[in-house]
Amino acid sequence: MTISKGPQAFPRSEYLRRLAAVKSEMGNREIDALFVSSPGNVAYLSGFTTKGYSPASYLIQGLVVTLHEEEPTFILARHHVPAAVYLTFLKPESVIGYPSLTANPGVDGFDAVIDFLHEAGLANRGVGLELDSLRAQDQQKFKARLPKARIVDCAKAVDWIRTVKSDLEIAIMREAAAITDAGIMHAAEVIRPGVREADAAAEIMATLLRGTNGKSGTGIPLMYVSASPRTFAGHMSFSEDAYRDGSQINIELGAVRYGYIATIMRTFSIGKPSDRLRRLHEAQVAGLEAALNTVRPGATCSEVANASHRAIEKHGFKKDTLCGHSEGLNGLEPSAYLVDGDMTVLKPNMAFHLLLCNFLEEDFSCFVSETFRVTESGVEVLTRAPRKLFEL
Amino acid sequence: MTISKGPQAFPRSEYLRRLAAVKSEMGNREIDALFVSSPGNVAYLSGFTTKGYSPASYLIQGLVVTLHEEEPTFILARHHVPAAVYLTFLKPESVIGYPSLTANPGVDGFDAVIDFLHEAGLANRGVGLELDSLRAQDQQKFKARLPKARIVDCAKAVDWIRTVKSDLEIAIMREAAAITDAGIMHAAEVIRPGVREADAAAEIMATLLRGTNGKSGTGIPLMYVSASPRTFAGHMSFSEDAYRDGSQINIELGAVRYGYIATIMRTFSIGKPSDRLRRLHEAQVAGLEAALNTVRPGATCSEVANASHRAIEKHGFKKDTLCGHSEGLNGLEPSAYLVDGDMTVLKPNMAFHLLLCNFLEEDFSCFVSETFRVTESGVEVLTRAPRKLFEL
Repeated sequence: MTISKGPQAFPRSEYLRRLAAVKSEMGNREIDALFVSSPGNVAYLSGFTTKGYSPASYLIQGLVVTLHEEEPTFILARHHVPAAVYLTFLKPESVIGYPSLTANPGVDGFDAVIDFLHEAGLANRGVGLELDSLRAQDQQKFKARLPKARIVDCAKAVDWIRTVKSDLEIAIMREAAAITDAGIMHAAEVIRPGVREADAAAEIMATLLRGTNGKSGTGIPLMYVSASPRTFAGHMSFSEDAYRDGSQINIELGAVRYGYIATIMRTFSIGKPSDRLRRLHEAQVAGLEAALNTVRPGATCSEVANASHRAIEKHGFKKDTLCGHSEGLNGLEPSAYLVDGDMTVLKPNMAFHLLLCNFLEEDFSCFVSETFRVTESGVEVLTRAPRKLFEL
Repeated sequence: MTISKGPQAFPRSEYLRRLAAVKSEMGNREIDALFVSSPGNVAYLSGFTTKGYSPASYLIQGLVVTLHEEEPTFILARHHVPAAVYLTFLKPESVIGYPSLTANPGVDGFDAVIDFLHEAGLANRGVGLELDSLRAQDQQKFKARLPKARIVDCAKAVDWIRTVKSDLEIAIMREAAAITDAGIMHAAEVIRPGVREADAAAEIMATLLRGTNGKSGTGIPLMYVSASPRTFAGHMSFSEDAYRDGSQINIELGAVRYGYIATIMRTFSIGKPSDRLRRLHEAQVAGLEAALNTVRPGATCSEVANASHRAIEKHGFKKDTLCGHSEGLNGLEPSAYLVDGDMTVLKPNMAFHLLLCNFLEEDFSCFVSETFRVTESGVEVLTRAPRKLFEL
């Protein structure tokens, strides 16, 4: 039986565009082969967005991009080959399976990758590795079994290319953002005194999966619900307690469409929020809007962050730490950060999660955030839920 | 304001028991300090089960266990300190925050760990590291900044201790298993021809969060729904398609209670399953039951796996690959595997996910699995959903 291709989020031309950018960078670095192993980068260059494959030693996988072949070669455990054929744009002959959980100790998927490089005549050329996603022993294996290759560290090389999205990627992020917005609006309906946090979380999560406008979520979304007395941190989980009058709830949601996430944060108050919380929220909205007003091609990440910091200071509060990051496949992209000192220059179709979450004191915090893209002349905010302190 | 302690899943004595086992192992390895950085092991020795902290360079965290202190010291980014104080059994003074996203390139949380080891007088002693969870550059930093220490690789040392659960841990896994069972039963209600996969997934997910018997889920569960035509792999996601007459659905669910997961797999058929699928399911149930009948203290993982393989062969099918793994905190524990050749000897209160998922041909598969624990004399199956091929 031949595995069919599943519904593709992008046409082949989109992947070839991404690969052309990667190959150009490979030329700059004078390498003939690049082994891409970080899951976000593998997804970016192939469409393999499933999250079920942890980087355990028996599930080693990655793409070998070469200058002389149009498509990369996907090397992964044999029993995952059908999933790779179904999910990716790759021709079936570009997917190579190796026997998994081999009885031969010390032999693993990296040996299959190295064997491939030898067979492809690349073992004595420049070979790029994402060293930041390889363990020391794996790096050692590449060096030992490719003694004539010139190993070049290509950590984050593909990540930086991912920062500038295509219009097709932005369109998918807009779909994800609409679902995220629906999650926030549903949270405002279901969070009530006496409702157990876990039950409200079930409703919100279900909304993120059902989606909106006929488009469903296509993967497990990001969802953090940090309610009183756990408003001191952003990544807490819902609990078994019931909401009460006076509860404050900081929520972060990110629906998933074909691996792309658009994230939003909002603060909710059951009953009237304190004046102090209102003032902090106003300050953070001012910080968020000052940042958005600074976004344009040519501005730096640092300028955006500092505009936010100054606006918050004018409101009598202080926030000088990270206020955002590049966003796209798998949520946070580990490349450009909205933080003082990050001199990344903004370009059209870069996308960010701009997040103002201030923990002024351990028990006093407030969230507001948006996902935006850089346009030709300024900014487009993709998330659209009301930018307010929700009073329930 | 002082952060209060959140509801603790375990009493202090449980953590001290776990730490005593770790310290005994440290004695065997002649080390005075052990830096525990893999998230599952950190959770095991502290109660820090939140999943929101990825091992990005600005979120480095871990526990330093020493022979001379009762409690470990938790070192993490300063803004995560309140979460650590709230979630863990540790005294607040055992939690140390370092300034995050420092402007000083090359300085990160590992420097805070190394500084702590110097200050505690441990820099010229035996220091254990989980090398498999540290990048090459991080290992290099430990070696460079601790030139007089004897660095000892303690990869998987804590993981192996985790394989034997306490009765308290088993009790929590039972609660998780009951929720997982409820998820399977709800799946059997909501999967119908014409229902969109994403909508059914929303219902199943909501059940896993709401929980059962007054106990909710406490974190995002594991959920894979691999429906026709995606039954060739186990870790596919639900899609935007609607279920149809004749659809086969392979489901894997694992509800979460305080970080502990109990997983189950079942196959569903909309309409009458083919005779071939019935026969494969019968063979796999025979394989599963043969494995369960082999489980007792003193048996090896390999014996259990081979009992399963032989039973399946008697039914005219073949399956000789991995059929399970140690299970507990965060699901799969990377230690004991139910596979031919794994000579791990079973002990009371080891817990496993025993999984029979056979991909006979690329489009022909069937799932059945249970979570079990080893008892004093045999086996207790924690998951209780009917062990059948569900016909909807």
